[in-house]
Amino acid sequence: MSDVKKVVLAYSGGLDTSVIVKWLQETYDCEVVTFTADIGQGEEVEPARAKAQALGVKEIYIEDLREEFVRDYVYPMFRANTIYEGEYLLGTSIARPLIARRLIEIANQTGADAISHGATGKGNDQVRFELGAYALKPGVKVIAPWREWDLNSREKLMAYCEQHQIPVDFSTKKKKSPYSMDANLLHISYEGGNLEDPWAEAEEDMWRWSVSPEAAPEQPTYVELTYEKGDIVAIDGQAMKPHEVLEKLNKLGGDNGIGRLDIVENRYVGMKSRGCYETPGGTIMLRAHRAIESLTLDREEAHLKDELMPKYAEVIYNGYWWSPERRMLQAAIDETQKSVSGVVRMKLYKGSATVVGRKSEQSLFDESIATFEDDAGAYDQKDAEGFIKLNALRLRIAAGKGRKQD
Amino acid sequence: MSDVKKVVLAYSGGLDTSVIVKWLQETYDCEVVTFTADIGQGEEVEPARAKAQALGVKEIYIEDLREEFVRDYVYPMFRANTIYEGEYLLGTSIARPLIARRLIEIANQTGADAISHGATGKGNDQVRFELGAYALKPGVKVIAPWREWDLNSREKLMAYCEQHQIPVDFSTKKKKSPYSMDANLLHISYEGGNLEDPWAEAEEDMWRWSVSPEAAPEQPTYVELTYEKGDIVAIDGQAMKPHEVLEKLNKLGGDNGIGRLDIVENRYVGMKSRGCYETPGGTIMLRAHRAIESLTLDREEAHLKDELMPKYAEVIYNGYWWSPERRMLQAAIDETQKSVSGVVRMKLYKGSATVVGRKSEQSLFDESIATFEDDAGAYDQKDAEGFIKLNALRLRIAAGKGRKQD
Amino acid sequence: MSDVKKVVLAYSGGLDTSVIVKWLQETYDCEVVTFTADIGQGEEVEPARAKAQALGVKEIYIEDLREEFVRDYVYPMFRANTIYEGEYLLGTSIARPLIARRLIEIANQTGADAISHGATGKGNDQVRFELGAYALKPGVKVIAPWREWDLNSREKLMAYCEQHQIPVDFSTKKKKSPYSMDANLLHISYEGGNLEDPWAEAEEDMWRWSVSPEAAPEQPTYVELTYEKGDIVAIDGQAMKPHEVLEKLNKLGGDNGIGRLDIVENRYVGMKSRGCYETPGGTIMLRAHRAIESLTLDREEAHLKDELMPKYAEVIYNGYWWSPERRMLQAAIDETQKSVSGVVRMKLYKGSATVVGRKSEQSLFDESIATFEDDAGAYDQKDAEGFIKLNALRLRIAAGKGRKQD
Amino acid sequence: MSDVKKVVLAYSGGLDTSVIVKWLQETYDCEVVTFTADIGQGEEVEPARAKAQALGVKEIYIEDLREEFVRDYVYPMFRANTIYEGEYLLGTSIARPLIARRLIEIANQTGADAISHGATGKGNDQVRFELGAYALKPGVKVIAPWREWDLNSREKLMAYCEQHQIPVDFSTKKKKSPYSMDANLLHISYEGGNLEDPWAEAEEDMWRWSVSPEAAPEQPTYVELTYEKGDIVAIDGQAMKPHEVLEKLNKLGGDNGIGRLDIVENRYVGMKSRGCYETPGGTIMLRAHRAIESLTLDREEAHLKDELMPKYAEVIYNGYWWSPERRMLQAAIDETQKSVSGVVRMKLYKGSATVVGRKSEQSLFDESIATFEDDAGAYDQKDAEGFIKLNALRLRIAAGKGRKQD
Repeated sequence: MSDVKKVVLAYSGGLDTSVIVKWLQETYDCEVVTFTADIGQGEEVEPARAKAQALGVKEIYIEDLREEFVRDYVYPMFRANTIYEGEYLLGTSIARPLIARRLIEIANQTGADAISHGATGKGNDQVRFELGAYALKPGVKVIAPWREWDLNSREKLMAYCEQHQIPVDFSTKKKKSPYSMDANLLHISYEGGNLEDPWAEAEEDMWRWSVSPEAAPEQPTYVELTYEKGDIVAIDGQAMKPHEVLEKLNKLGGDNGIGRLDIVENRYVGMKSRGCYETPGGTIMLRAHRAIESLTLDREEAHLKDELMPKYAEVIYNGYWWSPERRMLQAAIDETQKSVSGVVRMKLYKGSATVVGRKSEQSLFDESIATFEDDAGAYDQKDAEGFIKLNALRLRIAAGKGRKQD
Repeated sequence: MSDVKKVVLAYSGGLDTSVIVKWLQETYDCEVVTFTADIGQGEEVEPARAKAQALGVKEIYIEDLREEFVRDYVYPMFRANTIYEGEYLLGTSIARPLIARRLIEIANQTGADAISHGATGKGNDQVRFELGAYALKPGVKVIAPWREWDLNSREKLMAYCEQHQIPVDFSTKKKKSPYSMDANLLHISYEGGNLEDPWAEAEEDMWRWSVSPEAAPEQPTYVELTYEKGDIVAIDGQAMKPHEVLEKLNKLGGDNGIGRLDIVENRYVGMKSRGCYETPGGTIMLRAHRAIESLTLDREEAHLKDELMPKYAEVIYNGYWWSPERRMLQAAIDETQKSVSGVVRMKLYKGSATVVGRKSEQSLFDESIATFEDDAGAYDQKDAEGFIKLNALRLRIAAGKGRKQD
Repeated sequence: MSDVKKVVLAYSGGLDTSVIVKWLQETYDCEVVTFTADIGQGEEVEPARAKAQALGVKEIYIEDLREEFVRDYVYPMFRANTIYEGEYLLGTSIARPLIARRLIEIANQTGADAISHGATGKGNDQVRFELGAYALKPGVKVIAPWREWDLNSREKLMAYCEQHQIPVDFSTKKKKSPYSMDANLLHISYEGGNLEDPWAEAEEDMWRWSVSPEAAPEQPTYVELTYEKGDIVAIDGQAMKPHEVLEKLNKLGGDNGIGRLDIVENRYVGMKSRGCYETPGGTIMLRAHRAIESLTLDREEAHLKDELMPKYAEVIYNGYWWSPERRMLQAAIDETQKSVSGVVRMKLYKGSATVVGRKSEQSLFDESIATFEDDAGAYDQKDAEGFIKLNALRLRIAAGKGRKQD
Repeated sequence: MSDVKKVVLAYSGGLDTSVIVKWLQETYDCEVVTFTADIGQGEEVEPARAKAQALGVKEIYIEDLREEFVRDYVYPMFRANTIYEGEYLLGTSIARPLIARRLIEIANQTGADAISHGATGKGNDQVRFELGAYALKPGVKVIAPWREWDLNSREKLMAYCEQHQIPVDFSTKKKKSPYSMDANLLHISYEGGNLEDPWAEAEEDMWRWSVSPEAAPEQPTYVELTYEKGDIVAIDGQAMKPHEVLEKLNKLGGDNGIGRLDIVENRYVGMKSRGCYETPGGTIMLRAHRAIESLTLDREEAHLKDELMPKYAEVIYNGYWWSPERRMLQAAIDETQKSVSGVVRMKLYKGSATVVGRKSEQSLFDESIATFEDDAGAYDQKDAEGFIKLNALRLRIAAGKGRKQD
């Protein structure tokens, strides 16, 4: 069945990917290299080593990618105020290109000719992993067990474990959650379970990172975020690395019940799905970034960014991070961020992240022009007449020629 | 100075526009027709009659336009999920085209050759009034006193009142607010005062329609909104007219501290300004509309709507409601709303309006396809391989030819 | 292998689709219904009847769809000035949705459960046929022999013919062309042969519909096209049906060496391909439509059309005619065409179609305003100062704050 | 009237700007600095020196800007395949930012506080000059005589000359053309005269740079253009500087009757105007650039460029070269050009510039994949089924739920 010699697997240490290790070894008669990354999912990654060893894996990669993840993926994405379908902050989508890149780099280092992952055949993640892999190593073989095997139910998986003596405590979650979850520093996602009915409200005990707004403190929390060139570099005046910023904001947001989202979204593979997301820090970052831009960006570049954003979000959601169109859009976005520096003050309270102040040495806000008081000479109100007259000219000509206006 | 015979003035009954009545009569030696509309600003409009009469006005128009305002302007705008610069719900912008249209219609009825308004020469409203007027009656003369006269301070206005015996209680607000405000059924806006420093937090006693999140009830309020073809037609199962819907949602939102916004925005005339807005009902409507669309719109039309929205928002913000480009965009938007029907369930709590459920007979959500359980046959996971392979082809070819991927 | 009972085949009467008839009968043990349409490809369709009968087909559909093709597909597309990748007039793409619709309608009439076509697995046409089919009849079975069988060379096809006694003169072209061609009223396309080297110039004897510019008449031909609501309704004052218009323009264009195109294009399936196209009438129509719009469209709607056009072209090229996004775009486009009426005068000469005049009762061109002579009062040059000053304001503020301008 | 001390004037040496020198000296009682640039308009610039001296000008700037013009303005613009309103190659628009920049630089060098130009108050050029000036020196005073004086007819100008002893042979054109013309290396434009009737065909003797197609040679000319990173660096293998390239292509194009254009366009100031343009080299360059991109650009970046192009063209046409939005778009465009290298072969014949071949070491065209012959293994036709099936999924679901498809 196979001319695969060695495959690099994105390995979580959990039950499913442990089964995949064994299944790959058996089905393809190949060597498996495991790759486990800490991207802030909130679980220890080091235990994956012993599990992989127990499965006979010889080459085991375990890495802390948190800083790289936020610096090179999350931050560039937030420069664009990226939201998919008006709501979703792309927490899962943005982690995939990094995983794909490391899978391929490890394949190159270990001489592997294939990569594998544990994403199903119905979701977006298979697409994101594989588009990234093909873009970075066009001849790579991709093995997606969920599209190949017939272990497509919990019962069959358990039976396979028993048959192959895979310890079931490989499951990283003690009590099996009814939800399909994915976590990294930017968010946790929930799908499945009772969420499959889009009319059903998510249950309170589903959420993991945030208290409910009702349970959040009665007093608001204020926080000041310092931006340099579009990225947060300090919180309340204290300089931090990118991933430290996000960790801190996740804590602040989660404590104040911020960042819960419940949506129906359109998957790239063509179906709608209902998902819940917790993105405490990201929710704060989006609002704050818009606020610092409101002071420092020119109007037309701001509007152009808004027009390009849905496309940029779609590109990332669909898995095309490693594509010419993403680089092209990024070049445009990054060009605008040179002056996006300053401080934003936010109020966090029971589910809301509200901007209450913003300041910048790069500010284009000019009090002397915008004021309602007497003119300081910088702006001649009489100019407005000509401005309006010429902007109206095409409309007046059309109306004068009898064109209907409604 | 003038060959103006008769001018229709957008008259609030307040101090400024009362001065304008007198100033127009004197400066242009013309007859003034006043037009006062109830668009939900929350003040009685009938008292404007006596005031206008006292100023010698013979033709006085006082109208309740609330239903028309919401039905023909607010609702169409919300079909597009319209937001200006990522935040602003266009509460002021959307009322101007209606006022402009009535000014022109009244001018036509009364044989007036000019219209006038009380907007300053630095803001967007002058543009919106005048573009509308010119589009609907290309030969109309527009008189913008704030761009012409030298009464450009409170003191000069008061002196003019005294000199011309205009009763100062014409000022409709007992205690003069430090803010420049504008209200209609969709929102109240605040500018000026201490808001001119974008770092200063808005003072709690500025806000008029909403309680603070801190002062909102400890228990959430749930509400169900019924949509037909993109518009809300019932709340909690009770059928309502458009303006009744918005009044009800304003009450629900305001009681729960929802809809406060504090931004720096880019005016069409070229400057940045800081504004605060209260849009309780609109904030709920935006979220709810996206939710019902998430279930009923096709992915690609939803994405195309998102790409067009910033342009549509800009068109409205800049005052081009009565333009071919607005009609063109509206035709595209309305085409998509035919199936946007169903019910959205919202949770309102201390400043947040959260979607917790949505259902529709037009739903395109298909549980049997999206489920994580075994395939029901509707979706063959093996198709995903070909889908990914061909989508990756251009990337693979490029990589194979040595194109850099980062 | 099959639970297919009856399949409707897009049947040209040529060799390939004749083989498909037999292959379907054998492989699927099913009844085959043939559908042959005259969409202006320039070959008789009636001979397909005898051929189909000879192959044992009982239900034979032969239809003249030329008028419907131009009226409902070509004309709407030209309202958008549609060009794919800056060059291609979508001649093949625009015929597919009509064929797909008729295949499905015939399937519904005849009780067939499948459709089939002769497009290969590497091209765009398979996508266009099948997306249309699925959109119109979601449960339909699609059989694409070129993706299934192993008759993937001319030799194997000939062998199959011999073996199954399919007369080889079923090939409709006497001398087999080295090119893969497709023709309809809008164009002929050529692929393959020596065109596979994008550096090689197309050979003169490849072209079928047009003389070479060198061989065209020494005298130019002038023609006047009358538009109503965006569509041509008369040529040189003579009213014509849509397909008669296109036939006439093909003749005029072809005689004058107009409409040859040689490009490399990006297929939806991910590869580049080189194609040559002859689109004599379409080339004239595109230019003329822009000319009549230049006089009758408002600037902003014209610009918005230009921004939407590439997306609209992509939607059609990729096969999504029967999609919500195409209908949405069409609604926007058609909204703009209400006043696109008038006459365009073209000069045709040795390969060029040049606009030399245009006139319209709907014209928005106003000589009295545009003239360089003294103002007639309609336009006050002094308004330009305010127009420029306010448009420059954001740039001046930025420069005043020290922003770099290059 | 004035606190202007010194003004830098864009001086052609012709009658109109000579009058402006005198008028500025008189009206503003200020010193005038003249700036005359060779940007390829085809007239000697050195004679402007004596004329300026005769008018009493002490600081005279005469510069050859041809190389800079093509390298820094024309070439970047052509990287985007820029066309305004589907036809116009922006020949006038693209020269203005360079003139504006030099005016401001000279103002800074000479200590001038104002700039002036000879553009009228009805056209686009005043906007382009002044937006550039304000963006580069926000406090500059701009004097636009045509908006201020009453010399708004030929007769009044001549009278002014006589009165002020300005030699009338300052008029650079012996026989006064009936057209308003503007020329630079990229094009000549013609407005006015009999062109003010958009139905009237331009007269043959109007055109200056090109022979008529009828008068062009009977034999085609072939030419090969070598691209590096999106710019032409050699013609027929001979390396050339940017302006030499354009001069050469103007010659080749003009000799073959290429580049004439006759359109009605929408001016930024709100009116339509009819213009004729001769752009021989630019017409060739546009076609050739698309051809080299067709081989070397990824599909999605190519399509995104096409979607952004109309906006980019509008930005340049309207005069916003020196703006953040232009830089943002340029960053995106330039990002795509890194691999746009290779050779394009064109055929020039009696008005047509046709691409007949293209080759590149950066080519993404892969003959082995696109071929119609047997698969070489690089592309598995069976993948197309999954590709189509998943792309069709949303359409099938919608159809299955009863959504109308037409």
